[in-house]
Amino acid sequence: MKKLTLFFVFAIACLSIHAQQALWGAGEIVSPQINSDNTVTFRLNAPQAVKVEVTGDFLSPQKQQTSFGLVDAPGTAKLKKNDKGIWEFTTPQPLSPELYSYSFLIDGCKVTDPSNVYMIRDVASVTSVFIVGGGRADLYKVNAVPHGSVTRRWYQSPSLGLTRRITIYTPPGYEESKANYPVLYLLHGMGGDEEAWIALGRTAQILDNLIAAGKAKPLIVVMPNGNAVQEAAPGESSLGFYKPTFQLPKTMEGSYEKAFPEIVNFIDLNYRTVKAKSGRAIAGLSMGGFHSLHISKEYPDMFDYVGLFSAAILPDKENTSPVYMDMDKKLQVQFDKHPKLYWIAIGKADFLYKANAEYRQRLDEHKFPYKYFETEEGHIWKNWRIYLSEFAPQLFDK
Amino acid sequence: MKKLTLFFVFAIACLSIHAQQALWGAGEIVSPQINSDNTVTFRLNAPQAVKVEVTGDFLSPQKQQTSFGLVDAPGTAKLKKNDKGIWEFTTPQPLSPELYSYSFLIDGCKVTDPSNVYMIRDVASVTSVFIVGGGRADLYKVNAVPHGSVTRRWYQSPSLGLTRRITIYTPPGYEESKANYPVLYLLHGMGGDEEAWIALGRTAQILDNLIAAGKAKPLIVVMPNGNAVQEAAPGESSLGFYKPTFQLPKTMEGSYEKAFPEIVNFIDLNYRTVKAKSGRAIAGLSMGGFHSLHISKEYPDMFDYVGLFSAAILPDKENTSPVYMDMDKKLQVQFDKHPKLYWIAIGKADFLYKANAEYRQRLDEHKFPYKYFETEEGHIWKNWRIYLSEFAPQLFDK
Repeated sequence: MKKLTLFFVFAIACLSIHAQQALWGAGEIVSPQINSDNTVTFRLNAPQAVKVEVTGDFLSPQKQQTSFGLVDAPGTAKLKKNDKGIWEFTTPQPLSPELYSYSFLIDGCKVTDPSNVYMIRDVASVTSVFIVGGGRADLYKVNAVPHGSVTRRWYQSPSLGLTRRITIYTPPGYEESKANYPVLYLLHGMGGDEEAWIALGRTAQILDNLIAAGKAKPLIVVMPNGNAVQEAAPGESSLGFYKPTFQLPKTMEGSYEKAFPEIVNFIDLNYRTVKAKSGRAIAGLSMGGFHSLHISKEYPDMFDYVGLFSAAILPDKENTSPVYMDMDKKLQVQFDKHPKLYWIAIGKADFLYKANAEYRQRLDEHKFPYKYFETEEGHIWKNWRIYLSEFAPQLFDK
Repeated sequence: MKKLTLFFVFAIACLSIHAQQALWGAGEIVSPQINSDNTVTFRLNAPQAVKVEVTGDFLSPQKQQTSFGLVDAPGTAKLKKNDKGIWEFTTPQPLSPELYSYSFLIDGCKVTDPSNVYMIRDVASVTSVFIVGGGRADLYKVNAVPHGSVTRRWYQSPSLGLTRRITIYTPPGYEESKANYPVLYLLHGMGGDEEAWIALGRTAQILDNLIAAGKAKPLIVVMPNGNAVQEAAPGESSLGFYKPTFQLPKTMEGSYEKAFPEIVNFIDLNYRTVKAKSGRAIAGLSMGGFHSLHISKEYPDMFDYVGLFSAAILPDKENTSPVYMDMDKKLQVQFDKHPKLYWIAIGKADFLYKANAEYRQRLDEHKFPYKYFETEEGHIWKNWRIYLSEFAPQLFDK
């Protein structure tokens, strides 16, 4: 260790301003600290601040008046300053196992926790995150199990006129094997992109852990960008570092659904896949559920497994592209071919609950078989991680 | 667009608290705003804050008294509050083309810019970033050129007793081609990991752009984790979301250097590589320069191209592992085999400048040929991005 010490002393003594930032910028505060009883302590070093609060999904929501009426807003809790200027708050109750996100409000200004380097972007917001382990949340952690590979690459979409970025998970052992693997096409919601399922959905961790436990069959997961006008996630295209927006043009007007076989062909050409309906699943959340519904019915020979996670089911009259015409007739064709699994999941508090209930009723009327899975809460990533971890084990005759 | 509108109204009216965070969390502020004259405006919505400053590498450093004496600390500039509670600062001068990092100080508390989703972690700090384009900085942007693939995967290291994460860039066209590609092994510094060169070094962008311009030969870039005790970057291993530290055990005591052929074998086995000295380069920054120096001399038939970027050259007596013994004799063997390029780069203000000058003198005394490249400033990523963009074009007889 002597040489290290010497180098370290050199480094400290002569350090450039940038390295200093890296070394000392975050200070010695530990935050968040997950205590042994699963209460969580948040800390912030801000001696000059007047008021510090924490807000996040671990706190009960509070009603807030907006121009849209009374809506649920995230709860907040006040941190208390000690005599060293360190603000602190510990949750009064242990938190249930989950991946949580939170922000600090420093004199009313919402920021990430400077002591926590782990954060996730959701559309135009970045929040700090932590995981309380145990139960299902252990699926969201990196555990000491074999890990798959995650690749960001680009494919040509002649029909959308773009080169497009795509994220691909291959399971542990894929590279060493000569076998063909089934594929799950996993689609994000509005405001998302090809990073959403990996970052917010913890897809690589969930699949690594399910496969290691023998609960899911080793499979490839393909996470494309579902915004038909977009080359890549914000910051990953020649548009540069722009501010992401929730709503993009041409997300739900048929062009992405029509172009989808390009993605399947690209994957079948570049990976050792099971090139058959029996080896393909498609699932998505919200807008991605809408896409999954329509893609699977437009191409009824392509997918044997369909997952609609809090799907954005829209009234027929709102859908004017030919892709959305003759819905019942096309569903009839799809179900006549007996997909092995048509899985609908939604939370009881989801604003799309009623639309999904009506869609199930429509399927019932036609005697189209499906499975249904219902959870608490609403249109949130917590549910979509649950749905992925429930859906994946049902795939490919495992 | 009608259906979109309907869905959007649904979403707004009934939105869950999480989606709300995503939509409105960051507010409508634009920050940073790169103005047409390359001045940059920073903004923060913080009506209740008493004082708001910005600090970053775009500001001139200021002297600060520390326990190590007077050191350069990052400069700060005050933002001014308008009557709407929005704080604002515009740089008095245009900024030179560069990738810059910065933080806000809200009542003295250092945080990232909540309006900017683009940030980079360096050891235990996360800072907001932006790019002022033009000149060399255009190499750091994602441009409308063909893009390579970036894969995070895992390899077995029997000699370190770990399964380890590794980042691999393959150039545009690699997947479609049947050719073999040369490989650059690119090593990070102390406190870094297999994410450092991709995130802070903009390696994928630099290579995409150099290759597209015909300035670098298409090549594979392998970015391993150089901390011999570490499985993976913080947050990417079963250690969970812990606070990263600068100094880890066993980083510069020979075990990583000795184990390095495992990585080369893994790459040669899994990629279409030029499996010869003429098709391999190794380069690294700081500790990674130290590693490159020693690995290339321990395995004198492995690399025809060696790059020492601000290398941590340590006195011989500090290095007690057999790997570091008989330095001159081993260098003699290496140089007798005539590596095609031995490239040393450092900044004039680097705390390792003198050690590198002494090392060059040592090479001179033995008449070992090398090329030397000197820049302004010190031990900073700005320089390492420059060195990569200068080094890559000299590789593989391009």
